[in-house]
Amino acid sequence: MSKYYLGVDIGGTSTKAGVVTREGRTLAKTRVPSVLHKGREAGLAGLYETLDRIVDESGVGWSQIRGIGVAAPGTMDIPAGVIFHPFNLPGWENLAIRDLVTEHFRKPAILQNDANAAAYGEYWLGAAHDARSLMFWTLGTGIGGGIVVNGEIVTGAHSHAGECGHIVIQMEGGPMSPHGIHGSVEQYAGAKGLIRRCEAALRAGARSSIREKIEGGEELTPLLIADCAIQGDELAERLVLETGRYLAIGSINIIHTINPEMILVGGAMTFGQYETPIGRKFMDVLRQEVRSRTFPIPAERTRIDYARLGGDAGFIGAAGCALKAFG
Amino acid sequence: MSKYYLGVDIGGTSTKAGVVTREGRTLAKTRVPSVLHKGREAGLAGLYETLDRIVDESGVGWSQIRGIGVAAPGTMDIPAGVIFHPFNLPGWENLAIRDLVTEHFRKPAILQNDANAAAYGEYWLGAAHDARSLMFWTLGTGIGGGIVVNGEIVTGAHSHAGECGHIVIQMEGGPMSPHGIHGSVEQYAGAKGLIRRCEAALRAGARSSIREKIEGGEELTPLLIADCAIQGDELAERLVLETGRYLAIGSINIIHTINPEMILVGGAMTFGQYETPIGRKFMDVLRQEVRSRTFPIPAERTRIDYARLGGDAGFIGAAGCALKAFG
Repeated sequence: MSKYYLGVDIGGTSTKAGVVTREGRTLAKTRVPSVLHKGREAGLAGLYETLDRIVDESGVGWSQIRGIGVAAPGTMDIPAGVIFHPFNLPGWENLAIRDLVTEHFRKPAILQNDANAAAYGEYWLGAAHDARSLMFWTLGTGIGGGIVVNGEIVTGAHSHAGECGHIVIQMEGGPMSPHGIHGSVEQYAGAKGLIRRCEAALRAGARSSIREKIEGGEELTPLLIADCAIQGDELAERLVLETGRYLAIGSINIIHTINPEMILVGGAMTFGQYETPIGRKFMDVLRQEVRSRTFPIPAERTRIDYARLGGDAGFIGAAGCALKAFG
Repeated sequence: MSKYYLGVDIGGTSTKAGVVTREGRTLAKTRVPSVLHKGREAGLAGLYETLDRIVDESGVGWSQIRGIGVAAPGTMDIPAGVIFHPFNLPGWENLAIRDLVTEHFRKPAILQNDANAAAYGEYWLGAAHDARSLMFWTLGTGIGGGIVVNGEIVTGAHSHAGECGHIVIQMEGGPMSPHGIHGSVEQYAGAKGLIRRCEAALRAGARSSIREKIEGGEELTPLLIADCAIQGDELAERLVLETGRYLAIGSINIIHTINPEMILVGGAMTFGQYETPIGRKFMDVLRQEVRSRTFPIPAERTRIDYARLGGDAGFIGAAGCALKAFG
């Protein structure tokens, strides 16, 4: 009986894939640079080769693979299995990726948004494995989100649910986004917001090791700020904790809409999580701000924590979606 | 076979109840002043009498009633059937109203939040009868919300979902609410926000028939402003359309979270809906603002409309919840 599930998380820079058992054990996994920029045919050929290789490495034959879960970024039609234009690269517009994968491997496949898949991974096997509902913030250059309610991903009527980075928290006097949305969580707490606030503080004369690094030729990036915060730089720490406050406002809006059992935070911009003082302070600020601004019961009971599966959440969640879809 | 459902919507000032068929036809309905202020025993006795009377009027005997749906305002534990303190009246704290109703009538009962029940009523038989998901704004003194996704009410992990009036849209520089939540939809678009904005405009010297009415001894209420807007008063119209813009920001946050098929607006403050020029302009502004501030696909496809069941949505939805729960 086929009882293994292949999950793949296609990203603009790297693609992760793995073979997962029905019980959630990853037998083999890989991470390869995406070759999407080489065009549609080369990109798909690279994807197929990656999937073939990881099935081979897992020691499980293709005959044992029950289904394939494909996670991809950007907007898409999830029920139709079509990605609209996730990589802003020629050849990737309106691609029926689910059916292409199914035809190539002769296996049933499902398509899911990458942040939704990561949320499902954390729900299945990660920090929310004992919860029935969660909202998952993915903090990177942009801010994504995924929502699971009663064990089901909330995909929305038009596959646009979980775009929580675009929640408006400052309708007047906030910066403008390319989408014409004012004052969104992403504009405040995302990479651009962090850099903008850092530049403003430096212009205002703040003392910081960030200034020395920039003058030494380093580029001002969120990771530089995060590194300085981890090293104890005061300005960097303040900027990171402000990010926690903005994310708290977004989280309050999630609580007042779907009231999830858990709110999780993951992605590249989580400052070392509990391994660093700033990661612990960030979580403290997030929790305190949420608790001080919502109703007593969700304030007391909503569990807020870091995600646990790291960069594997996407392919694991995609494999979990295939298990859910194909049994 | 029992195939009728009794729904009741308990409010602070009036209670509505009705007997509804499996197909959604209301056989009889009533609206009576609530006697909750007389204390718990008298309030419950009044409730039981109202339910007995409407079953009698419906021509359906109690033996034909399959179950009872009870809708009530405020915070509660929905699965436990307990209301916490919805009326701020002595005797109504932590009341196990579902079990009391079940014991009194020897019928299975369910408890639901009133705005959730109204959303379910609109989903079952109202403006969203052909949709799979919706968010329902109830505009009154406060602003409530109810959410249905894939035919299920989203109640939340702690029965606090749908509290969308408390979504923060202006985290800095906004007014403060009693809950310590800054700049919520309710503070801007609710009755207090409307009156505050009106008072500020009058102080600033705006010409308006509102001023004459107040000077003539009328109290400044949202309904006075709504009436003046319906009569074409320029200031009143501007205030109402501002309300539409604030509600649009809240709606965008809902779209970016759960991406519902429909967003509905109902309640006392809907300005005559399509029957008046201001009601039509209000809906136009709400739709335009939402469309101009979200992603192209939900901007194009999210259906935004007035609710259709009026004050009956709550008891109809409660009856529908009983049908769903008890078959």
